Amino acid sequence: MLSVPEYSARFIDYLSQRSLNNEPKNLYEPINYILDLGGKRLRPVLTLLAAELFDTPLEKALDAALAIEIFHNFSLVHDDIMDDAPLRRGEETVHEKWDINTAILSGDAMLILAYQLFENYEGDTFRELAQLFSKTAIEVCEGQQYDVDFETRDDVTIAEYLKMIEYKTAVLVGAALKMGGIVANASKECQAALYDFGRDLGLAFQLQDDYLDAFGDPETFGKQVGGDIIENKKTFLYLIALQNANDDDARQLEHLFSISPTHTEDKIATVKQQFIESGAAAATQEKIAFYTEKAFVALDTLKISEDKKKLLKDFGKSLMERTV
Amino acid sequence: MLSVPEYSARFIDYLSQRSLNNEPKNLYEPINYILDLGGKRLRPVLTLLAAELFDTPLEKALDAALAIEIFHNFSLVHDDIMDDAPLRRGEETVHEKWDINTAILSGDAMLILAYQLFENYEGDTFRELAQLFSKTAIEVCEGQQYDVDFETRDDVTIAEYLKMIEYKTAVLVGAALKMGGIVANASKECQAALYDFGRDLGLAFQLQDDYLDAFGDPETFGKQVGGDIIENKKTFLYLIALQNANDDDARQLEHLFSISPTHTEDKIATVKQQFIESGAAAATQEKIAFYTEKAFVALDTLKISEDKKKLLKDFGKSLMERTV
Repeated sequence: MLSVPEYSARFIDYLSQRSLNNEPKNLYEPINYILDLGGKRLRPVLTLLAAELFDTPLEKALDAALAIEIFHNFSLVHDDIMDDAPLRRGEETVHEKWDINTAILSGDAMLILAYQLFENYEGDTFRELAQLFSKTAIEVCEGQQYDVDFETRDDVTIAEYLKMIEYKTAVLVGAALKMGGIVANASKECQAALYDFGRDLGLAFQLQDDYLDAFGDPETFGKQVGGDIIENKKTFLYLIALQNANDDDARQLEHLFSISPTHTEDKIATVKQQFIESGAAAATQEKIAFYTEKAFVALDTLKISEDKKKLLKDFGKSLMERTV
Repeated sequence: MLSVPEYSARFIDYLSQRSLNNEPKNLYEPINYILDLGGKRLRPVLTLLAAELFDTPLEKALDAALAIEIFHNFSLVHDDIMDDAPLRRGEETVHEKWDINTAILSGDAMLILAYQLFENYEGDTFRELAQLFSKTAIEVCEGQQYDVDFETRDDVTIAEYLKMIEYKTAVLVGAALKMGGIVANASKECQAALYDFGRDLGLAFQLQDDYLDAFGDPETFGKQVGGDIIENKKTFLYLIALQNANDDDARQLEHLFSISPTHTEDKIATVKQQFIESGAAAATQEKIAFYTEKAFVALDTLKISEDKKKLLKDFGKSLMERTV
């Protein structure tokens, strides 16, 4: 087995070999652009790693890993249009650098190109990869739609919120791992365990993102601390705080999440205080620990050596040890 | 074999059974809306018809036919955003009735749903359908990009124009027929002949659309006669006229296609005269006849009865006998 940075390097090497020089340029250049912007390459690394857990060389998993990465970037290109986002990874988004029409059409092509990569696999492997991919992709679309819907709803439940982040974010992490298992012809039980591990870790990761957005260290957290509060985003923290608050506090919180003041310091401070006093901050940390533990329990059913389980666990821990 | 209206009725019946009542509603309602708007259902009918040519009951081809129809409507939803079109089949477009974000996301989901329909086919049939679908879908995206690119180019060649309409329109007609052949397990030669028949008929049909846009009967032509001229669209007629014209006429034509007068009657009349005098009108009719004949020649290699070949030929003729 290689280390995570080594898997990442092997993937990036493959990505650069596969760079598309096709015509028409206005369709393919934005695809190369977004794929070359970087990012953690977390999902493709998990696909390669999962294949090697079952003694299948990473080379066999490269096309599945690339499909996952292309799909992830497709969703970023289209989501960035919907969110009117100017920047992605510190660079111009596709619809900013080109235009909305280009971003729509290049995104569409990426979704199709992802499917085409599965054609490099024979027989049942092709079918299993394509089926898992379709199921996951439609869930990601549903998750994105729930996220959009929640912006204009004031009755979102905790269960609905968890389903939204599961679909929008976590299932793709599960699918990335399971694809490695499919390529390696692992047993159905092992494939299911890989999926559960990835999905639960994905949920923990997304909840931690909510938490760090309010309580992260501005020095080390990649995004603006308090960004979700400024944007009145109904995160897990907000929903729990609202649920636990007495009537007065609930009214104040709802009011704060209905305004957009020019100076945001006071609003952020008051909201964070409510997050702490209502117990929402602690409840979020508990939920993160719950999903992380659940992910690790899924590892128990995997039929791989203890050394390899430790490797997955260490990877999970390193993901969750981002600075608070 | 059934008649074309009977195949259409069977398809529409299946479509209504499969109507998606899923959550989230804001994702699936626009999909039901656009699929229920109607249209000629030409492509799915061809899939059903092709399967029955090889003695396979249409029921086996319904999911492939539905995939083709969903893909066609996906491309309409996204193209309508790009063209800023308010109406589709006389009703509001999806991005008008909802908004652009909804149209992007529902379109994405349609592309994935189309792939999922192939999961109802076993073994190699699944792979062959999905591969043909991906190849065709990426060509449709490329065709759309060429069409967009041509708007701002003044050096489009005839060959480039023909490739654009082949990709944007004709390959999907070929694929619709070939999918029926795949489902019916027809020989590779027969599948190729079905594809060529559909593609060439698609090319003839699109060129006829160009022709009728200028010379069609306002009473029977579905769209506004002269619409392409008003929009300065570089159709086959325009490109041939420009190629055949002397310097003075070419300059006049280029000038006319650079302005957007409020009153369009004079412009339309002058352009139509140039289309006729340059020989472009006649050349277009020749090209239509060429592709129609080419499509019929492809039928010769099909290993089906003469009665069935006549059925396909009559269908082709009926398509091409729209009122001029």
